[in-house]
Amino acid sequence: MVFTILDIIGTMAFAISGGLTAMEKKMDVFGISIVAICTALGGGTLRDMLIGNTPVAWLLNLQNFYVAILTIVVTILFRRQLNKLRRSLLLFDTIGMGVFTLIGIQTGVQIGLHPLVCILLGTITACFGGVIRDILCNEIPLIFSREIYATACLVGGALYFLLTRFHLPMDLVYFATIGLIIAVRLMAVYYHWSLPRVKLPGY
Amino acid sequence: MVFTILDIIGTMAFAISGGLTAMEKKMDVFGISIVAICTALGGGTLRDMLIGNTPVAWLLNLQNFYVAILTIVVTILFRRQLNKLRRSLLLFDTIGMGVFTLIGIQTGVQIGLHPLVCILLGTITACFGGVIRDILCNEIPLIFSREIYATACLVGGALYFLLTRFHLPMDLVYFATIGLIIAVRLMAVYYHWSLPRVKLPGY
Amino acid sequence: MVFTILDIIGTMAFAISGGLTAMEKKMDVFGISIVAICTALGGGTLRDMLIGNTPVAWLLNLQNFYVAILTIVVTILFRRQLNKLRRSLLLFDTIGMGVFTLIGIQTGVQIGLHPLVCILLGTITACFGGVIRDILCNEIPLIFSREIYATACLVGGALYFLLTRFHLPMDLVYFATIGLIIAVRLMAVYYHWSLPRVKLPGY
Repeated sequence: MVFTILDIIGTMAFAISGGLTAMEKKMDVFGISIVAICTALGGGTLRDMLIGNTPVAWLLNLQNFYVAILTIVVTILFRRQLNKLRRSLLLFDTIGMGVFTLIGIQTGVQIGLHPLVCILLGTITACFGGVIRDILCNEIPLIFSREIYATACLVGGALYFLLTRFHLPMDLVYFATIGLIIAVRLMAVYYHWSLPRVKLPGY
Repeated sequence: MVFTILDIIGTMAFAISGGLTAMEKKMDVFGISIVAICTALGGGTLRDMLIGNTPVAWLLNLQNFYVAILTIVVTILFRRQLNKLRRSLLLFDTIGMGVFTLIGIQTGVQIGLHPLVCILLGTITACFGGVIRDILCNEIPLIFSREIYATACLVGGALYFLLTRFHLPMDLVYFATIGLIIAVRLMAVYYHWSLPRVKLPGY
Repeated sequence: MVFTILDIIGTMAFAISGGLTAMEKKMDVFGISIVAICTALGGGTLRDMLIGNTPVAWLLNLQNFYVAILTIVVTILFRRQLNKLRRSLLLFDTIGMGVFTLIGIQTGVQIGLHPLVCILLGTITACFGGVIRDILCNEIPLIFSREIYATACLVGGALYFLLTRFHLPMDLVYFATIGLIIAVRLMAVYYHWSLPRVKLPGY
């Protein structure tokens, strides 16, 4: 129940982020919708295609699709306000990251994949919506050059498998995983942490 | 039979559109071929991967692949003429849109997906070839900021499920669906209809 | 055994190529890793998704993933030296092309696909890692406008099926295929062969 709500919050935050980015590119209502939907559902879609979990999740359960559509309408109507609130939206975006990572990990665990692969699937679920958003908007993916983003997912995923070793109650494991991802990400933004950039001489 | 011919016409129109766009980018013969093939077959490929209909259709039945290859040869040879005829090619492109939407819808219906999902699959089949074309050519997808395109597919898809409710003969349903899509699209081009663009202040 | 080594060499060469391209775009360590991994594993991943060979290969056998990660570390540490050696790396890259093409062909043969489809799968395995690399780096894919690349894969694939007709020992077929691909590619680079570009008037 709690996870369903967190999942919806994350889907909304991702759809808003996609919608606003599409508006910056002066797209029409259709383009905005597609970019928002791909941002919200794209990570899970890629994950499902990679593991052969088809038809992919959102084709079988339309809940997140409806959430995305509703969010797009709200985003278009209140675009000025939402754009100003972008920094505050970070919290919701980060909740989405945490929940999506957890969902991705569990999808992998359910079909018996290697823990490292599960962590990668979680990270893909959380990160590739944004990557697809930026590709559709003809930009180099933001998370490739800025922000501690995937790193938080990887750290959270590692905690997940560390805690499950100790046979802790799963609910605790879930909240600890999501909590750590949110904490790492928010601290990274607050303290301006970033990964080292590696440049080639001459570039 | 009629549908096979319409399918071939659509595949040819999409391959031409992909080939000409690739030529604008000064690609070589191989690049032109890949872009043309991805434009012609990409929408159906994405649809098949999303629903797990694998190996994807064109790997099992090479008809459309051969049509695309043949079209590429013709496009390269008659590029000047075809480029001048681009506006006239719109009709064929629109036929492709209609047929591809119908094929996508039926693929979804056959595996028992929700009508809304079937309409989305139809729209993906018709639209994402062009999206992939533009991504490969490093452009923001055209249909995200111009033209009533996907809207026509959605409207046609809605008609499909409306008519099937009345237990009309399927052939009639098929032609009505394709016909409405073509009509909406051509009227949109003729009357310069477009979806509202939504801009953020400052962009 | 020999093929495993060749496969590893190819994976390393592709990961280096992805990593260096990402560095040119001033990405951070995470972005570099993703681009390198997608370059090394992306072609095979797309092939597996197209044929429904899921979970895709690298999720089940992490060998190539580990090779890619290790290569990324080495690439970051020795980036200056590797960047200078780029031309010499061409040989390894070409070995990767040959092996990846062969692996792709055999994947198709194993599930009984048409020889032409198998050759296409081989070419996709060898070429689309680089295509994904360039899309992630917001560039028009290099192989669409320069270099005899896919052509070598297609020629090698044709030889594969020609030789299997004569019931030659499979090891011989494998080496002949890889050898021809490497030979065509190296000769193309050495003699500056390129495919004709086809431009539209006015572009």
